[in-house]
Formats: sequence, C-alpha cells, structure tokens
Amino acid sequence: MLIPLDESTPLYRQIYAAIRSAILSGELAPGSRIVSSRQMSRELAVSRNSVLLAYDQLLAEGYLDSTIGSGTYVSANLPDDGMPRPVQRPAMSEDTPVAVSKAAQAARTALSQAVRPRAKPLAYDFQYGLPNVADFPHELWRRLLIRRARQRSAQTLAYAPPAGLPELREAVALYLRRARAVSCDASQVLIVNGSQQALDLIARTLCDPGDRVVIENPHYSGSRHVFSVAGANLVPIPVDHDGLSVEIGERTVKKAKLIYVTPSHQFPTGAIMPLSRRIALLNWAEALGAYVVEDDYDSEFRYVGKPIEAVQGLDHKHRVIYVGTLSKTMFPSVRIGYLVVPAPLVEAFTAMKYVNDRHTAMLQQHTLATFLSDGHFERHVRRSRVRNAARREAVISALRQHLGDRVQIAGENSGLHLLVWIPELKAAAIPELVEAAEKRGVGLYSVLPYYIGDPLCAGVVLGYAALEPDQISAGITLLKNALNSLRR
Amino acid sequence: MLIPLDESTPLYRQIYAAIRSAILSGELAPGSRIVSSRQMSRELAVSRNSVLLAYDQLLAEGYLDSTIGSGTYVSANLPDDGMPRPVQRPAMSEDTPVAVSKAAQAARTALSQAVRPRAKPLAYDFQYGLPNVADFPHELWRRLLIRRARQRSAQTLAYAPPAGLPELREAVALYLRRARAVSCDASQVLIVNGSQQALDLIARTLCDPGDRVVIENPHYSGSRHVFSVAGANLVPIPVDHDGLSVEIGERTVKKAKLIYVTPSHQFPTGAIMPLSRRIALLNWAEALGAYVVEDDYDSEFRYVGKPIEAVQGLDHKHRVIYVGTLSKTMFPSVRIGYLVVPAPLVEAFTAMKYVNDRHTAMLQQHTLATFLSDGHFERHVRRSRVRNAARREAVISALRQHLGDRVQIAGENSGLHLLVWIPELKAAAIPELVEAAEKRGVGLYSVLPYYIGDPLCAGVVLGYAALEPDQISAGITLLKNALNSLRR
Repeated sequence: MLIPLDESTPLYRQIYAAIRSAILSGELAPGSRIVSSRQMSRELAVSRNSVLLAYDQLLAEGYLDSTIGSGTYVSANLPDDGMPRPVQRPAMSEDTPVAVSKAAQAARTALSQAVRPRAKPLAYDFQYGLPNVADFPHELWRRLLIRRARQRSAQTLAYAPPAGLPELREAVALYLRRARAVSCDASQVLIVNGSQQALDLIARTLCDPGDRVVIENPHYSGSRHVFSVAGANLVPIPVDHDGLSVEIGERTVKKAKLIYVTPSHQFPTGAIMPLSRRIALLNWAEALGAYVVEDDYDSEFRYVGKPIEAVQGLDHKHRVIYVGTLSKTMFPSVRIGYLVVPAPLVEAFTAMKYVNDRHTAMLQQHTLATFLSDGHFERHVRRSRVRNAARREAVISALRQHLGDRVQIAGENSGLHLLVWIPELKAAAIPELVEAAEKRGVGLYSVLPYYIGDPLCAGVVLGYAALEPDQISAGITLLKNALNSLRR
Repeated sequence: MLIPLDESTPLYRQIYAAIRSAILSGELAPGSRIVSSRQMSRELAVSRNSVLLAYDQLLAEGYLDSTIGSGTYVSANLPDDGMPRPVQRPAMSEDTPVAVSKAAQAARTALSQAVRPRAKPLAYDFQYGLPNVADFPHELWRRLLIRRARQRSAQTLAYAPPAGLPELREAVALYLRRARAVSCDASQVLIVNGSQQALDLIARTLCDPGDRVVIENPHYSGSRHVFSVAGANLVPIPVDHDGLSVEIGERTVKKAKLIYVTPSHQFPTGAIMPLSRRIALLNWAEALGAYVVEDDYDSEFRYVGKPIEAVQGLDHKHRVIYVGTLSKTMFPSVRIGYLVVPAPLVEAFTAMKYVNDRHTAMLQQHTLATFLSDGHFERHVRRSRVRNAARREAVISALRQHLGDRVQIAGENSGLHLLVWIPELKAAAIPELVEAAEKRGVGLYSVLPYYIGDPLCAGVVLGYAALEPDQISAGITLLKNALNSLRR
C-alpha cells in the first residue's frame, strides 16, 4: 500500500485517512487482511508508533477488526451495500431543486429582496439603516462593555432568562414610559435580537397558517416577510397622509388576527398618524378581535412638534404589541431590540423566544442596562437628534435648491429618511435612475420593494443619518445630474 | 382644575398628563373650553412657559383645538365612542385564555419543562450545561474582545451577512475538518445563536406542519420542542447501547423528513454510535429521502479511545445537517453555535436566519474568529478535557465507592455528563429522590423529561463540568444519604 506522506499533518492522521479512504472506496475489501504495523512502518519508513496510532483509531471506529494472533482485517461487519463510495461528482448538484418547507420558500423571497452590501462603498450612499460611526459614543460604550466583561460569574456565564436581563427590562420599561408614554412595567418587556426577531416572534406566537394580517401599503418589507414565512394571508391597506387608512380597512376587512402599523413615522412614506386615527385604529382592532403591532422603529427622531405618544399608551384593552429597536439609535450590529406585550401574552412570547434561541447574548444586555439607566442613551439620542436635524435640513434645502418643483418631499418631519417623489418619472423608470445615480457615486433606494402593486410615479427613499451635510449637498447635486441624464 | 405637582418630573409634563388624563376619562368633555394659559399659570403658581409647553403638546397631539382669538377647547374631532376611558380593572385579566398560535401552544409546553434557575444556588449542583467559571480563559477572551471592540468601522457596526462573519465561517470550517473530519468548506457554515437556534432553523427550513420527524427516545428535549413548534409529527425510536436503533426505525418508519440523532454521545444515555450503524443510518436516510440532523453537542470531550469522526464526514449524498455549539466548550451566555448544511440548502437556511433575526451579534463573532484561528480555542479544549477527565473520574469512583452495585453508570466515556440508573427505584420515584437530594444541597436532574413514555427504573443525569473533584465526591456522599432516606 502506497501512502504519500507530507509534513503538514501528523503522520498517523495521514495513514489513518489513507486506509480509511481505501476501505470506503472498496480498494480494501471487507474481510481482507492488512499488513502488520511492523511491516507498514518499514514500508512507509515511519515510526511504528505512528502506524499503531492509525490502526488503533481505525479499530476504535470499526473500520478494522483484529483477532489476537491472527492479524488485522478490514471489518466484515460493515454492510456491504452501505459502503459510501467516493463520488466523482456530488449526487446532488447545487442547482438541484431541494424540497424545503413553504416557510423556507417565503424566506428565500425575502432574502432575494435584501439590499446587498456593496463591494465598494459609494461616496454618497443614502441607504436607510446605515449607522453613523461618528455619532455614537463608542469610547464610553467600550468602557462599559469592558467593565461588564470583568464581572464574570457563574450567573453571567450561564444560560439566562429567555425574556432578558431583569435590570435591562426594567431600564427599557422606564425609558419607554418616560419617552414614549408606553404603559408597561418590566414584566411586559422582552429583550430580543433587534426588531426583526421581535416581528418574527409576533408572527409565530400569534399567527397560524391562513390567518389574515393587515399590513400598510407601502410597508416595511421586513414585516411582510415574517408574516409570509408564518403562512399568513397578507391584507394590504393603503396609506394616506395620515398613515394607514383605518376607514378603508374598516370597510374592506372583516376578519384579521393582526394589524401591523408604523404610526409614529410610516415606513416608507413618513406619515404621522394623528390621535383621532389612532383611536379609530384601536376601536377597529377591538371590533376585529385583532392585535395591533406598533412598530416604533425611529420615533426618537422627531424634528417638528413634540413626539406623539405611542398608540400602546392609549390602549386599555391589551390589544397593542409594541416593538422598538436600538439599530437606529445605536448601531445595527449590536442586535438588540425589545417588545412590550400585553400581560396575558407574556408567557407565550417568552416561550417562543426560549424555543427560538434561549435568550439574547448577555454581554450586550448587561452593557446596555448600564448605558440606559445611567442616562447615556438619552443623552446620546438628544445629541444625535441635533445632528440628524442638520442632516435633514441639508437634504431638504439641497433638494429644493437643485430640484425645486421637480420633486415632492414626504415624511421629512421625523425619522432618519425621507421619501422623494419624482412626478416626471414613471415608477418603472426607478431602476434606471438608481443605476444612473450609482454611476455617479450616489446610492439611491427604490420604493418599489415596499409596495404591493406600483406607486403612481417614481419614488426613492433617502436615508441621511450616515452622511454629513456637505456630503448630502454634493450627493443631491449628483442626483440632479443623474435625473437629467434620463431626459435625453 | 386642580393639578397636584411634585418636583420629580418637569412641570409641563405633569400639567400635560393631568389634562390629557382628564380628557380621556371624560372629565373634560369634547368641545369644552379650557382656561387660558395665563390663568392656569396663576392658579397652579407655575411659570406660564410650563403651561404653554403643555398646551402646545396637547395641541400637537390633537387633544386640544385652538382658534385664534377664541381660546382653547378640548378637541371635538375625537370620535366620541372611541374615547378610551380609564379602566377600573383590565378589560382582560391575566388569567383570560388568549388565542395564541398552535406553535405558541407547543412553545409554552417547552418553557414549562425548562429547568428554572434556582433562587439560591445549591452547594453540589449536578446540572448539565452549567459553565465552569474557572476553566475558561476569560482574561484572554476579554483582551480579544476589547481589541475587536476598538476596531470600529462602518462595516463592523452595520448590518452584517446573515450567514455570519466570513472569517469566522472559515475558522469554523477549518476546525471542523481538522477536529471532527466534517467534510465542508466555509460556504456551508452558518453562524447562529447557539445550537437551539440551529435546531429551530432546521425545523422551520425543512418541516411543513404534519411532516414526520424521527427522534431518539430518550432524546434532548430542546430538539423535540423545535419540531413540535414547527407542527411536525414526532416519531420516537428507541435507543440501545449503540444509540438510535436504525433497525427498529427501518422496520417501523416508512416516511420521514428528518432523522435527529446525537451519535457521538447520545443525549442523555451517552451511547456512542459505531461506524456500521452510522452507515446504516445514512442508507436509511437515503431510502426515506430524509435528512439526518447530527447534533454534535459535546464531541470535544471524549476520554476513552480516539474521537470518532462525524457522521457528516461519511456522507456523500448531501443528506447530513451538522450542528455544533460553543455553549459547552466556552460558556452558554455567549450564544454562538454553528450549522454545516449541504450546499444545496445553504441559501434556504441563510434566508431563514435572515428573516428570523438578520444575523448574530458581531462583536462575539469577531472575537471568536480570532480565538479560533489563533489556536486559543483548541488549547482551551485540550486543557479543559484534562480537567473534565478528572471530574469524570471523581464521579465514577465516588459512585462506585458509595453506591457500588446499587447504581449503573452509562455514557461515561464522553461528554460532560453521565447517566445513573438506580434499579432499586421505580421511575415514578425520581421526583422524591430529586427532592431528598435538594434538601441536602445536591442538584439532581431526572431523565423523565427526555422520555416519551417511562424508563424501566429511576435515572438521573449528572452533569459534572461545573464542579471540582472534591465537591463531586462530597455531593455523591450526600446523594447516597438521599437515596437511603427513601428506603425508610
């Protein structure tokens, strides 16, 4: 038996692998005798010890059999027909269709619509959700992180409560009561891996396949995806300048399990739902026996008027599930969000989180608890609100200066993005505009993925949190050039 | 209007809250006029500015209307019947049954079986899965963590690839090829939040409701739970001293989507599946068109003989999904595990992870990538294998010394736990034994939750990784006392 040996791997592993491979390929037939370790060591010019180690492992794993005094054989007990033979090509190519669940088919659609990270960053990328590295107090966060990492104990290293670190739940409840008039105590707060997991838990905990879920049209596509994956039937209801049209909903929807809304800053149109409609929404949910999912993804950033309190705070019937995230206020890769659920649902949500992934990583939870309760979070939000207000001002004034009446701006009073409608372009022309902008170093994002059906004209979402005012102004100038290039 | 004011909250918030509450309760009827800000400031003896701020917010939120020159009124536009009134008691008490999904009902069962953290730790807790604070090189880990936390950039703070950090996937693939003979490249590795999320992703990606899933009996209950939540029909197949009985399976199961196994150390019996059965398992899966889920949860710890390579490495037909975790080798709260999936399934699994929670937190992924690729992980595993071998030795010798023939030890050659059968006790008597042990400061864990049906006699799982040999020996002495106390 010729075994080519090199120096990168222990010799016994190479001998082991070669013999094993010969057995699996059938070169060494079951029952056949193999040479003694002494002889093998001579043939290969290696120490007998290396050969013995290899033989031992093959014996332990059942590839070889040995009878004292009569030598070593390839095991006869391996079922003959069961021998995996080395395959020339995979039995299943990567293109072979594979039977995955219906849920996985829906998930694949979701992934195919995800914004792909760019190989080369653009100079002026208006991507919504990009973090601003300069805004966040990283040095402070790291200090807290290190301090927490030092406090190791059996308790901080072991499995933790599925609903989250108690002190963090307490800090989140306090913050939400104060800043968002959410009516809750810590027992209703669940800590999760960002708002995406919050939405997924909602869909799994409340929807059986076939249940109806009202979504806004247009809407945040991450929410559409979780409900599709849960097998729900989506019922898209139009959005007007006050957000989801409850009136149309009441007229057309007689049965639903959930109503998903973004009332503080409708995504992507930016509409702010007024109080009267919020109350109408709660009444409608009550009439349907449905839960309202209030996704409050960027309510921290409101520039005109005072923040409007959460729908959750108006609800006295345990009908609202409130979702928030730190991806927008801190940075996305921290992966922390939270849910506030009505008391009667706490146990079911905790159970679903437990089955999903036991609990969210603890170091970030510990660090965030301190960050919140020492007031750092709110100080950071106040500071970045001022910076984002300047960025918002820069986008608006650049759009007005360079594009004037050619664009309509929506949703600019709140959040970290605005929506730019371009009446001179049809919706179908958006990809062309996006491409022309990209050639000029400008990242634009079509509204199309957020719509079921098409909007009346072209629209793009401009996220501005990651850019500084001078970049914004330069980017909008280039956007104008891109738009002009389409006129021909 | 009398508003009691205190100093803990800004005055304008208190005034705002009091008026809002009066409107919501109906005390202030829609259309009724409220006193001027000047008059209110006099009545409450606060600055007019505070009152104006409160009025402004109420106006912004639509609670109040003001017509220039004619004063301020409670908004008439709020739908009358829609006014949420302050409720004396919640409309829904916490005991009211709530309609949750079938999946959530299954999840609640899972949570109800979870081991609860103890209010007061026991002196001798044999809980499986408790970390050993002393074994892990925390100082080194923290240094790597801090170094990685310093390297902040737009890229490390933004959303990351759902399948995980590329350098970590590469390091895991390399480790698994070397240490476990897993046949894979980095593109097949997905980084997840512990093996629980791996199992949940498997169930969601491959199982539609009603699909059959073969599980071991007894089995790791975390796996049963994910399949139940996915709506699968569980098919329990008995375990013998070689692990899952493929023979019984072949005889009784003609259709299945998945076969879930723990071949390197069956949980909880500790059986090690020999090669011939591994090959029979692969053939059976092929005949059924099923996938094998290989949960390799503690294969790093093998004390007798060489480690046996993973079933995945024997498979040439893309039939095996391999699951591993760092909760056992590092510590549970880090929440990192990994999946190796056949190439044709990579996209569907990545999509399901993306919908579930976008991606696993990045700081731990970066840190772990360095920890693995610089060889720290394997050095740590080698060192803790030596320590765990001593602990294992201590349990076995204490059991032999104190309980002799009264117990049978199983699964002691591998892993971080062993199973103790107590033929003199019926299975039904386990809770009594657990209680008697707890009174003596000893934490014992029943095998019952791992069984569908009952075992032939009483059995307890003893996890020993968190205890030192002298504690183990003392604990077993007390276990003997507890057992004797049941004889009466």
